[in-house]
Amino acid sequence: MAEPTYITLNNGIKVPQIGFGCWKLKNETAADQIYEAIKVGYRLFDGAIDYGNDQEIGKGIKRAIEEGLVKREELTIVSKLWNNYHAPENVVKAINKVLSDLQLDYVDVFYIHFPIAQKFVPIEEKYPPGFYCGKNGWEFEDVPLAVTWAAMEKLVEKGKTKSIGISNFNGALIQDLLRGCKIKPQFLQIEHHPYLVQPRLIKYAQDNDITVVAYSSFGPQSFLELDVPEAKGAVSLFQHDLIKTIASKHKVSAGKVLLRWATQRGLVVIPKSNKKERLIENFHINDFDLSSKEVEEISKLDKHLRFNDPWTWGAEIPIFI
Amino acid sequence: MAEPTYITLNNGIKVPQIGFGCWKLKNETAADQIYEAIKVGYRLFDGAIDYGNDQEIGKGIKRAIEEGLVKREELTIVSKLWNNYHAPENVVKAINKVLSDLQLDYVDVFYIHFPIAQKFVPIEEKYPPGFYCGKNGWEFEDVPLAVTWAAMEKLVEKGKTKSIGISNFNGALIQDLLRGCKIKPQFLQIEHHPYLVQPRLIKYAQDNDITVVAYSSFGPQSFLELDVPEAKGAVSLFQHDLIKTIASKHKVSAGKVLLRWATQRGLVVIPKSNKKERLIENFHINDFDLSSKEVEEISKLDKHLRFNDPWTWGAEIPIFI
Repeated sequence: MAEPTYITLNNGIKVPQIGFGCWKLKNETAADQIYEAIKVGYRLFDGAIDYGNDQEIGKGIKRAIEEGLVKREELTIVSKLWNNYHAPENVVKAINKVLSDLQLDYVDVFYIHFPIAQKFVPIEEKYPPGFYCGKNGWEFEDVPLAVTWAAMEKLVEKGKTKSIGISNFNGALIQDLLRGCKIKPQFLQIEHHPYLVQPRLIKYAQDNDITVVAYSSFGPQSFLELDVPEAKGAVSLFQHDLIKTIASKHKVSAGKVLLRWATQRGLVVIPKSNKKERLIENFHINDFDLSSKEVEEISKLDKHLRFNDPWTWGAEIPIFI
Repeated sequence: MAEPTYITLNNGIKVPQIGFGCWKLKNETAADQIYEAIKVGYRLFDGAIDYGNDQEIGKGIKRAIEEGLVKREELTIVSKLWNNYHAPENVVKAINKVLSDLQLDYVDVFYIHFPIAQKFVPIEEKYPPGFYCGKNGWEFEDVPLAVTWAAMEKLVEKGKTKSIGISNFNGALIQDLLRGCKIKPQFLQIEHHPYLVQPRLIKYAQDNDITVVAYSSFGPQSFLELDVPEAKGAVSLFQHDLIKTIASKHKVSAGKVLLRWATQRGLVVIPKSNKKERLIENFHINDFDLSSKEVEEISKLDKHLRFNDPWTWGAEIPIFI
């Protein structure tokens, strides 16, 4: 069994290049899935407050550790600050809730999930709050990102997280964050697939020693069940002629091609699967190489097509305009 | 002669919707052109440190005021902070230089020209510095935009400028600025033409009572002389079939159609012309109306085609990625 590739972050910490994405993991099966994923070799688990499954993830991790499958320090456990907790005092409340749900003393990575500051909702009122901001519908909070970032930096100082990251930030926001931060982000997590390649953003992040993590590597696939119209209108990447041709040439699945296209350019990937055979397959994507021509051809499928855009969430939130 | 339409800013100040753009105005003729423009009715002059012609603009204004053509308080004089002066102490140095060159006690509008902080260059070393940052080539300064903005706000308190604005900011940056500012920007100035329509950005700004100013209303035209490859490859908007058809239907020039398309949607425009007849024509663009269908048809020419992108300036500056 091939060992997963490890990547060294700008703070010297090593993390696996292939992780397990916990978005949309169902609560009923999440604990078992995490346990199984650890069993087949996964060591990085990408969760978030908003996914609403920290308790179950925590159970899966605990079982695996108790059974001696893995040690805590071998795992990279990721969570993400949700939009309602951008005020510094709420950043602390949020991570304490995350750690309590996960039954851990620290996470390995904590992200700002979106550059969006919604109104605070007390944990006892609704958790995770999602788009809920109280009875008045959408409301926002005037906490600048630099203030939230300073609170994130304090979590590192206090040992609540080893690394910190930003997610869904564009280049202009990253540049401005870098001008004022004490701790540079270790990670940038972005939507990334052949229909949304963002080569300049990736280059800018990598040039600044920020490790880029791709989410929704399979493109429209992840958004079909969310009824995103752009996803319904797009050709499935699993059915795309180019991807199928390359997959059959290498005798691998289309999914493996999509993931390898990202890891070969230095990105971390975090696929999710409910099926065990797919789980194993996704974990072993670095066992073949695409030619540089194939990588380029896939990159040319770029349509600047973004599926996860808060402008369309019901409030017109301008983070990608 | 139709009076120009006035627009009321979020601080209650009224400004003309049609102004005169001073970018690329030649130093030899600038003073006369400003004087002539005032004579034909222009009251808003959109200058910038980077345009390198403040002294000549000042001369033109002074002559017009001395000859009684106009009073200072009838004019809206605009300048823009260049990238090398983002540190608070340099914001002060920069506006003092601008006011001294213009021979004025205050400007009406002062913008942050770009969300880019280059290394400071002393005024006596090179002014305006442009892309120059000293002998080491491109260098940047770690001044966050919120810090520069706070210094801009102080200029209002001190009476050095009546209004303040931002230029070339994207939606995510604007949202973050609004979270922390004391004074909301009065203006957002952006590249805007039928090949780069940015309806969401305009909506977001206007919903937040920020007046949008369009620059490069004629699209590729302004960038041909700068050898921008994208401009050379694009069909001139003056020669575009749709624009020509609409122009001939209304018996106006293509240029007038392009400007009216912007003002009809509430934007301020700042065309420039070296020809007197064109100067007069551009000033009287609000004397006809496009149908809403025509406005829509022109908006559909959108190609997301940006000509003024600092990513291509020689340093990979990520403000539009």
